[in-house]
Amino acid sequence: MTTMLDVTDITPRACCAPLVREPLTAEEAEQLAATMKALADPTRLRLLSIVAASEDSEACVCDLIEPVGLSQPTVSHHLKILTAAGFLTRSKRGTWAYFRLVPGALDRVSQLLVAS
Amino acid sequence: MTTMLDVTDITPRACCAPLVREPLTAEEAEQLAATMKALADPTRLRLLSIVAASEDSEACVCDLIEPVGLSQPTVSHHLKILTAAGFLTRSKRGTWAYFRLVPGALDRVSQLLVAS
Repeated sequence: MTTMLDVTDITPRACCAPLVREPLTAEEAEQLAATMKALADPTRLRLLSIVAASEDSEACVCDLIEPVGLSQPTVSHHLKILTAAGFLTRSKRGTWAYFRLVPGALDRVSQLLVAS
Repeated sequence: MTTMLDVTDITPRACCAPLVREPLTAEEAEQLAATMKALADPTRLRLLSIVAASEDSEACVCDLIEPVGLSQPTVSHHLKILTAAGFLTRSKRGTWAYFRLVPGALDRVSQLLVAS
């Protein structure tokens, strides 16, 4: 049985034009900055890229500890931030938590940065 | 006369595949996180979007203060970070500094986040 936990309530901004086309409002800038902050950490970028490059874009937390060379609590902390920001979903199977890339989440951020 | 100052030595990562295609190395993740940190601030995102949406993608610092409602030193501090990160170039004409969007800088970051 798969139980979804930590369902995100902060999803990357799906609205709005690319930021080069028209000035962001203060509220839009706050939202986008919060999303960017989740990405602006080298460990989180590595974890995200490992999960994304895994089969079915999913990885067990047990397979994420060794590649980044950090403790399990530290890795779990970073995964929680990526989950809260809407980039990953978390499910638990047996002893381990599994993390999966949310389809389209990175693309939405990408589209806000492009010139057209 | 236009004098270019603060020529950037940190340009957004031009190499490498999108992060979802293959895991980032530690060094790649450090570089990309540094670039993301420059963007992960609501004031900097607003300044960048105002410059980008201006005629010729250029704006005088004198026209950036009122829209964000901060002091000139604070605005200049944020513009310096965006310039150091390779998103803006700075030139001085008379009393004022002008900031221009670096063509392609945001696109390079955008391309690292897309799925394909």
